[in-house]
Amino acid sequence: MNYIESVKNPKVKQWKKLLTKKERDKTGEYLIEGFHLVEEALKEDNLVGQVILSQNIDVPVHLKLDGIEVIYATNEVLKAISDTETPQGIAAVCKRKQTQLDDLNPQKLLLIDAVQDPGNIGTMIRTADAAGMDAVILGEGCADLYNPKTIRSTQGSLFHLPVLKGNLAETVEWIKNRNIPVYGTALEGAVSYEETEKSEAFALLVGNEGQGVSKDLLDMATQNLYIPIYGKSESLNVGVAAGILMYHMRK
Amino acid sequence: MNYIESVKNPKVKQWKKLLTKKERDKTGEYLIEGFHLVEEALKEDNLVGQVILSQNIDVPVHLKLDGIEVIYATNEVLKAISDTETPQGIAAVCKRKQTQLDDLNPQKLLLIDAVQDPGNIGTMIRTADAAGMDAVILGEGCADLYNPKTIRSTQGSLFHLPVLKGNLAETVEWIKNRNIPVYGTALEGAVSYEETEKSEAFALLVGNEGQGVSKDLLDMATQNLYIPIYGKSESLNVGVAAGILMYHMRK
Repeated sequence: MNYIESVKNPKVKQWKKLLTKKERDKTGEYLIEGFHLVEEALKEDNLVGQVILSQNIDVPVHLKLDGIEVIYATNEVLKAISDTETPQGIAAVCKRKQTQLDDLNPQKLLLIDAVQDPGNIGTMIRTADAAGMDAVILGEGCADLYNPKTIRSTQGSLFHLPVLKGNLAETVEWIKNRNIPVYGTALEGAVSYEETEKSEAFALLVGNEGQGVSKDLLDMATQNLYIPIYGKSESLNVGVAAGILMYHMRK
Repeated sequence: MNYIESVKNPKVKQWKKLLTKKERDKTGEYLIEGFHLVEEALKEDNLVGQVILSQNIDVPVHLKLDGIEVIYATNEVLKAISDTETPQGIAAVCKRKQTQLDDLNPQKLLLIDAVQDPGNIGTMIRTADAAGMDAVILGEGCADLYNPKTIRSTQGSLFHLPVLKGNLAETVEWIKNRNIPVYGTALEGAVSYEETEKSEAFALLVGNEGQGVSKDLLDMATQNLYIPIYGKSESLNVGVAAGILMYHMRK
């Protein structure tokens, strides 16, 4: 049986490196942890490379571990490769999937411009999944998709729908060339979201927590929308705004 | 001029204690930090007791400091009383406001049952403010309203609308006695939120991140609602769900 006792084991050192964006970008691999995420990841083909289990935990029988390399380790090892304060004793190394927009035929897309908080990115991916969107595109300046906090906030939706990194200007062109409307979110030069028609095909473009969507992209949008503020708050959280809009606009 | 150099100053020690719930409950005071929050708080009467400023910062001219005790301090002091890694050099001691439901005539209420994440609580208060709700009621088991993370996530909306702590069962009765419908959120025994009629008076009841709203409360609701999941995610983030529902249901 594969069993790792020491945090100085070369494999452990390599896994720890995956907590950095640099190493994730270099290897194309990333770490996930916790029962729910590992279970969700194991449902996908060719996603999970290795599963790392604490020697103290009972492996749930429904985990699909056939053909997966399972490595047992001490709690210290699990703790060393964890981003949380109370690791659940299960982690996995995953391989990034490469998808191109041209390979998909997306009808509903969420485009995210320079959103910096990993929790916001993850929550939007989770909501996009729930709202039946076909893909999420992360533009430049977004928090890393494979940041442990981003992954945790997706609650596994990262594995359910394609999440691509891309140039948003090019993406907006690509979408408009397919006669799909692109709705930006803005405070000026925009109409209330309730005035839009529900549609089976649309792209929604949301932006940075402080600055919103960049002006260049707003200028390219088919129409820009705002969500009315009825009280005294200045704005909505971007993840909440994206949720209201995706659910409102879908047909 | 009031100037504090040492983190061992008794005032600093007292402010630091306000980072604990125990001391906040004992004194009825809480700390806020950052320009935006302090500015928002200063707009309210009888809310801010003292403003603490780093000796290095320029005080924005639009801050309404008339009649407010201003204390200057070193960066070390500001850092010692801060909950963030990069303090902005401005903090304030605020007094809790006591409001009773009977003093208000709320038409739109958000009831929160045992939501544990301070960020979720704060985001929902911010969204409730934006959506024009009249009050937010926090039931037992919720993260502390005066936790620095909660306050930060409200973005100041905590000062804009009444946020009360209360027994939710009693609150639901109070609301129903006023002929205002109470909508719970549930997966079973519920109808799609899109089937409800928009209204000028309603209460929305949302619940714990894992367990949802407690069964006892769901049984008391006028109607329970669900938000359809069109993709593969199991649920929505509670703050996102609350936003979708509050915006959908208001008239």
